[in-house]
Amino acid sequence: MSEAIKFLDPRPSVLSRRKDIIADLIDLLPPEALVHEARELVPFETDAFVAYRRVPLAVALPQTTAEVAAVMKYSHRYGIPVVPRGAGTSLSGGAIPQEDAVVLGLSRMTRILDIDYANRTATVQAGVTNLSISDAVSADGYFYAPDPSSQLACTIGGNIGMNSGGAHCLKYGVTTNNLLGVKMVLVDGTVIELGGKYLDAAGYDLLGLVCGSEGQLGIVTEATVRLIAKPKGARPVLFGFETSEEAGACVADVIAAGIIPVAIEFMDKPAIEICEAFAKAGYPLDVGALLIVEVEGSEAEMDATLASIVEIARRHGVKTVRECQSATEAALIWKGRKSAFGATGRISDYICMDGTVPLSQLSYVLKKTSEIIDRFGLRVANVFHAGDGNMHPLILFNANDPEDAARAEAAGNEILKLCVDAGGCLTGEHGVGIEKRDLMRHQYSEADLAQQMAVRAAFDPQWILNPSKVFPLEGRNAA
Amino acid sequence: MSEAIKFLDPRPSVLSRRKDIIADLIDLLPPEALVHEARELVPFETDAFVAYRRVPLAVALPQTTAEVAAVMKYSHRYGIPVVPRGAGTSLSGGAIPQEDAVVLGLSRMTRILDIDYANRTATVQAGVTNLSISDAVSADGYFYAPDPSSQLACTIGGNIGMNSGGAHCLKYGVTTNNLLGVKMVLVDGTVIELGGKYLDAAGYDLLGLVCGSEGQLGIVTEATVRLIAKPKGARPVLFGFETSEEAGACVADVIAAGIIPVAIEFMDKPAIEICEAFAKAGYPLDVGALLIVEVEGSEAEMDATLASIVEIARRHGVKTVRECQSATEAALIWKGRKSAFGATGRISDYICMDGTVPLSQLSYVLKKTSEIIDRFGLRVANVFHAGDGNMHPLILFNANDPEDAARAEAAGNEILKLCVDAGGCLTGEHGVGIEKRDLMRHQYSEADLAQQMAVRAAFDPQWILNPSKVFPLEGRNAA
Repeated sequence: MSEAIKFLDPRPSVLSRRKDIIADLIDLLPPEALVHEARELVPFETDAFVAYRRVPLAVALPQTTAEVAAVMKYSHRYGIPVVPRGAGTSLSGGAIPQEDAVVLGLSRMTRILDIDYANRTATVQAGVTNLSISDAVSADGYFYAPDPSSQLACTIGGNIGMNSGGAHCLKYGVTTNNLLGVKMVLVDGTVIELGGKYLDAAGYDLLGLVCGSEGQLGIVTEATVRLIAKPKGARPVLFGFETSEEAGACVADVIAAGIIPVAIEFMDKPAIEICEAFAKAGYPLDVGALLIVEVEGSEAEMDATLASIVEIARRHGVKTVRECQSATEAALIWKGRKSAFGATGRISDYICMDGTVPLSQLSYVLKKTSEIIDRFGLRVANVFHAGDGNMHPLILFNANDPEDAARAEAAGNEILKLCVDAGGCLTGEHGVGIEKRDLMRHQYSEADLAQQMAVRAAFDPQWILNPSKVFPLEGRNAA
Repeated sequence: MSEAIKFLDPRPSVLSRRKDIIADLIDLLPPEALVHEARELVPFETDAFVAYRRVPLAVALPQTTAEVAAVMKYSHRYGIPVVPRGAGTSLSGGAIPQEDAVVLGLSRMTRILDIDYANRTATVQAGVTNLSISDAVSADGYFYAPDPSSQLACTIGGNIGMNSGGAHCLKYGVTTNNLLGVKMVLVDGTVIELGGKYLDAAGYDLLGLVCGSEGQLGIVTEATVRLIAKPKGARPVLFGFETSEEAGACVADVIAAGIIPVAIEFMDKPAIEICEAFAKAGYPLDVGALLIVEVEGSEAEMDATLASIVEIARRHGVKTVRECQSATEAALIWKGRKSAFGATGRISDYICMDGTVPLSQLSYVLKKTSEIIDRFGLRVANVFHAGDGNMHPLILFNANDPEDAARAEAAGNEILKLCVDAGGCLTGEHGVGIEKRDLMRHQYSEADLAQQMAVRAAFDPQWILNPSKVFPLEGRNAA
């Protein structure tokens, strides 16, 4: 990836006061809550996007909302950029710092504050990992629905910042559909609360606005999320097709028929081979594309839903239908899918796209993606949330070859533009971050972007919160 | 209701130019799109809240986005307040005009622009009524889910402004969960588009922010909404209890168990009697409280869901369980429920509260509501969306007796504060409007309100869009 100007210019007023700022932060925070030695800062220089690196000025690791507020109040007074960070698993560079920024890491805010089964809610600190919410309530028969593949590591605060999804979001919705309230520190250190244990809200839906705002409107320190009762049963079923186009058309018809399984995941042949080699999940290797469809409910309900889906799949020439026979097999099927990115990383460098398209365009976009990849002389593995139209082409390339890397980046940009032109959008669940900020001009008109930036300025007039992300940089170096 | 200062002071710069403004609007719009004669303006002086009346300066009734943009560009240039209006069915005074305002009525924008079954979406102009979306797709097996009781009259634009709900929103969500995109005219006449036929959005969720913003961020002229496939079958079942507290506790336990029927509606004894007298719905008259629970799916699914609910209801001493035997009977049961407000209006004046509470608080809040009503010497009928915790106490009073009216208003305020203090909020689906703007201080801190108003100002710095609504008036006459 090119290392041309990719961050807003560092603020001289901050860089020149580096030592004073660190001294002030040492006074503000407990000793274990501040990292400022050069070698200790290195782990915070990038995130799971890894295309860019910048060592930040310092890293604050607070444990309470009051400590977060103290850091914000101080940074606001002196115009110091602040980059919030959960577990650093962002795939779009959302947590990559810049050299004049304090990283505000929430990873030590790991307390589960309240489990309320009567209202089916959990209230947790922002650094609690996604999976540990489900772990905390699993024995009582509940779970938290959004399930990013990184759920073992990623935090609920990061999930809120990116409005994260996951395989099981087809039925249960993404983060915004499962978030009931937050406590949030505004840029000047003021603490506000949005939403609560009830439907809807009086006044504007600032909670919905904050979800997916990539840390630019404030620092979420606590979240109240919806718990879901576990279904009576759940069963992943494998559907193998000759071609990706057939599988894509089948997905579109299932959804158009109004059938909403829990999940419809898609894998093309390269993805099947990569995941099977890694996880031994039992995927059929003689097919061109695979759908993992999960149905749930009572046995009768699962049978009925499945019968409707099989009927549609037959119309699209399905080759293989294999129902899973045991809980162990089900776990393996999901392990294979969820380890797709890691398994791909073992065999090649890759960048993961996150475009979302109307379902009627799924087959068309798969075909065009393949043409783009061929034209650039690259390889691709497609593994994604098909029921939501949320595509993840993994473009394979050699990071040690700058020309190959540039080709991969160019192909990725073409694919995302293709998604937008097909009536879709740049990102389903990974966020804009650094990766897609310039493509925002392809998605939005100047008026659209101006209105989004005006909303941002209503929260952060100095533009200090995660400043180099989401919006194209041009025209903002003056901010 | 008291007629003390309830609107922002009229702008002298507008009132003094009334004739010029009308002349300019006549030039801007086709003749049939402008109402300005005094007697023709009367129908626009209030909405379904009817507590306050103000004759507006003029009423624009555009048919196209371009006409809406022309009105906004003009009003913005001269600082003229604009009050958007759908069908005028607002129960919180959201569409009540003020004397220096142009009412922007969307009721002539009634074109259905696109029905897309492949993506399960409908795109319609903002003046299309809620029910006519379902009517347009019913023969093909689809419907639009949110179903306010006023769905025959209310418009999708008004539904978006208030984030409207309805009986069937327990399963399918309220407006914000079923809205995929809008075309919107900004305050200065610029046209933007938010969302589309895909999941999620890149950048901020301005679509979610606009939904429920009560016409203060822009004028929605077109909406793309989600269509849902009709279930195989649906069956309302009546559950009669001795007391409201038992019925409330049963609802809380059903939801806590993770069972999500399509609808759980609640009626207390006065509501049952009023609705039965009007609709002859066959409600049992020997019970103290009634739940209408709708289950849907295949016969087997409905039986299974129902069995789980009956088991919980038995634990709460249910007296009567009556399954509906025919489509005619089902229609009557829903007719009775949906005509509750109209039927109440035939026997008394009333104000309808719209507080929402955590489900664990339902029984407590019902009991306390009853105590408040007794203390004020009033009568109440409770008929509401229990599964969502969205309460609608209808407080009966005599509008010709100013003291009785003042008592009803005071009791209503106490009930809404009770909802907030129980961990809930002021409004579930009717909006803040004029009715609840002063109570916003009870729900929100100064910092919360300041942040909401800053967001408003990012869209409308002159504060001309629906200016006297949502926020307390004090401190804003200068705006």
